[in-house]
Amino acid sequence: MSPFTGSAAPTPHWEHLRVEREDGVATVTLARPEKLNALTFGAYADLRDLLAELSRERSVRALVLAGEGRGFCSGGDVDEIIGATLSLDTAQLLDFNRMTGQVVRTVRECPFPVVAALHGVAAGAGAVLALAADFRVADPTTRFAFLFTRVGLSGGDMGAAYLLPRVVGLGHATRLLMLGDAVHAPEAERIGLISELTEPGDADRAARALARRLADGPALAHAQTKALLTAELDMPLAAAVELDAATQALLMNGEDYAEFHAAFTGKRPPKWRGR
Amino acid sequence: MSPFTGSAAPTPHWEHLRVEREDGVATVTLARPEKLNALTFGAYADLRDLLAELSRERSVRALVLAGEGRGFCSGGDVDEIIGATLSLDTAQLLDFNRMTGQVVRTVRECPFPVVAALHGVAAGAGAVLALAADFRVADPTTRFAFLFTRVGLSGGDMGAAYLLPRVVGLGHATRLLMLGDAVHAPEAERIGLISELTEPGDADRAARALARRLADGPALAHAQTKALLTAELDMPLAAAVELDAATQALLMNGEDYAEFHAAFTGKRPPKWRGR
Amino acid sequence: MSPFTGSAAPTPHWEHLRVEREDGVATVTLARPEKLNALTFGAYADLRDLLAELSRERSVRALVLAGEGRGFCSGGDVDEIIGATLSLDTAQLLDFNRMTGQVVRTVRECPFPVVAALHGVAAGAGAVLALAADFRVADPTTRFAFLFTRVGLSGGDMGAAYLLPRVVGLGHATRLLMLGDAVHAPEAERIGLISELTEPGDADRAARALARRLADGPALAHAQTKALLTAELDMPLAAAVELDAATQALLMNGEDYAEFHAAFTGKRPPKWRGR
Repeated sequence: MSPFTGSAAPTPHWEHLRVEREDGVATVTLARPEKLNALTFGAYADLRDLLAELSRERSVRALVLAGEGRGFCSGGDVDEIIGATLSLDTAQLLDFNRMTGQVVRTVRECPFPVVAALHGVAAGAGAVLALAADFRVADPTTRFAFLFTRVGLSGGDMGAAYLLPRVVGLGHATRLLMLGDAVHAPEAERIGLISELTEPGDADRAARALARRLADGPALAHAQTKALLTAELDMPLAAAVELDAATQALLMNGEDYAEFHAAFTGKRPPKWRGR
Repeated sequence: MSPFTGSAAPTPHWEHLRVEREDGVATVTLARPEKLNALTFGAYADLRDLLAELSRERSVRALVLAGEGRGFCSGGDVDEIIGATLSLDTAQLLDFNRMTGQVVRTVRECPFPVVAALHGVAAGAGAVLALAADFRVADPTTRFAFLFTRVGLSGGDMGAAYLLPRVVGLGHATRLLMLGDAVHAPEAERIGLISELTEPGDADRAARALARRLADGPALAHAQTKALLTAELDMPLAAAVELDAATQALLMNGEDYAEFHAAFTGKRPPKWRGR
Repeated sequence: MSPFTGSAAPTPHWEHLRVEREDGVATVTLARPEKLNALTFGAYADLRDLLAELSRERSVRALVLAGEGRGFCSGGDVDEIIGATLSLDTAQLLDFNRMTGQVVRTVRECPFPVVAALHGVAAGAGAVLALAADFRVADPTTRFAFLFTRVGLSGGDMGAAYLLPRVVGLGHATRLLMLGDAVHAPEAERIGLISELTEPGDADRAARALARRLADGPALAHAQTKALLTAELDMPLAAAVELDAATQALLMNGEDYAEFHAAFTGKRPPKWRGR
């Protein structure tokens, strides 16, 4: 329990997501397989609120984001989102789109690495969720499709026009966001959109193994690495170097750094405490 | 005709470029094949003015930029530009270089996708024009060469030192701009400098087909995708997410988004109107 | 000798580095092969001071950074840096980390290209030194490892969380900095981390040949290309285009640009003077 906890109670039940925790690893599963895990207003809101709660708690050291059934996530539900937004007023449309963008910001800014476990379709908002994760562990059935223009919307949705050029370069990003064509696993790996390509059917297991490795390692060092990668995309070199210096000075006062040196000189493996 | 038209009359004839229009697709051809389409002061000025006029008109929904003859464009003419600039004064040198930079800015900022149709040489300013386009459709004869240092100038010309690292990464960009060596089609494709590699001799046809697809699709969604890709290279994540939210709220009030939903539920293809 | 020289005398002897100069090319060698060129406080301080002195002098037109023995550089010495920092106070920890960051800033900002000659291990700070260079000329034995999290520190060290995403994209950069796994030469080349892959044992020779080519060419054009690549990572497009215009106007008044035109029209090779 973080000392920075006020009156707000943790949410007792997440209705639109399956949430499991095991020794520092949270697994969040989109579990609406009969609809290819199409997102609803409730699923977005739960992702936003869950990530915010987990970010405050500090008991989670790595998170797996997975999808149940034939694919990872087919994006916003055609009826429950596209149909529903057609009757929203302008303020509500802004609220909806700010909510989805907030989910991506929270994935980028939460104090633990997020590992997306991918298979089958990762389309529309599902592709952006995967893109926002720190790692994309994908099996060969994975295909990304940034479908937004196919429904008459901007390819820049939920930060995709910011993130994708920084992952695959502006040329590929323009093609993917403008056309919305499917990107299958071999091309996705070639252009840097996949972090780890697994055997067929093995993405969930491999993603859990990676999250376990991250959670059992020097978790504060991992969290700071993520924070700096996120922040320094938006910083000039001189400021980034100063942020690095302050961060390393901080961590050099930490327990894990001393433990590394003690373990190394004692010729034994380090016992990481994540602080 | 845009309602935001004042006293300025459209240019009746473009002397230094061939300009054709067909149902929302403009094709601009560098047509000085006996000089490998080397650019002159007049060609730069026409590109600057033409793109500005087309940007205001709103009748163009996609643009093809092609070169006639053996190659796309060999860059600035050795006599008519390099020789001529040797007798310019400092204010004129600034004016010249601002004009060429303005061409690149207008390619990046015009409200329609630009498809470069590439074959043979794309050198110097020709390479940067191709780089500034949204799509580079190239046949296997294509070779890029950022020749600027070879004539004693900075590799950062017309925004190349800004754009190229964002397309191929800083390592490749440094090598290409510092050395000016030729990059042939296979390497260009491998590092992300080519959007679509065609059969020999097929780049013009493929570029026109892509422009046609873009113009016949949800063109306002395409235009906004381009605008966001361009703007978000220069924005922090939080601001980019807010821009995306406002853009999507706007487009969710648009005709094409409603048309997509009607077509999907009616099990028919959408009739895009580009608004 | 630069006219902008004051009272400070050049350092007569570099105790922690081997420094050689030959006609505009400086070669700086990490020469502690019995420790795989592990860095010490003194080596960092010498790199910082040497690069600053060379930047002021203007007689160096290209620099090779090499490592003697079995590898390029194994990073910070486990005893002389990790052990030693454990007894530093907070102000000293900041000073240390600012010094290492200053080395990277100076590599990026010095007015000549830096060519890293790589073989064997380039680990920790050694990997970041290589990353900061303009060119990475590497033989097939080269392996990079951004080991920082392995010792309990942030992967964002000395600007790595700024530089690496801009070289290989955010996806690969996250994986490399978060996990600290080794990246062998074939993968490094595939993701854009190597500028030139050589035959086994040939990296030093090839790096010297590249530096010689750069120093004998239009060196002011090379220096400005580097300066613009560095600066424009942190600039919006419009400002970058303006910087390019001012830079080209300046160089179009320079000797090398006129020499190119005279040589071209005289059908002879240009004699570059680097000004």
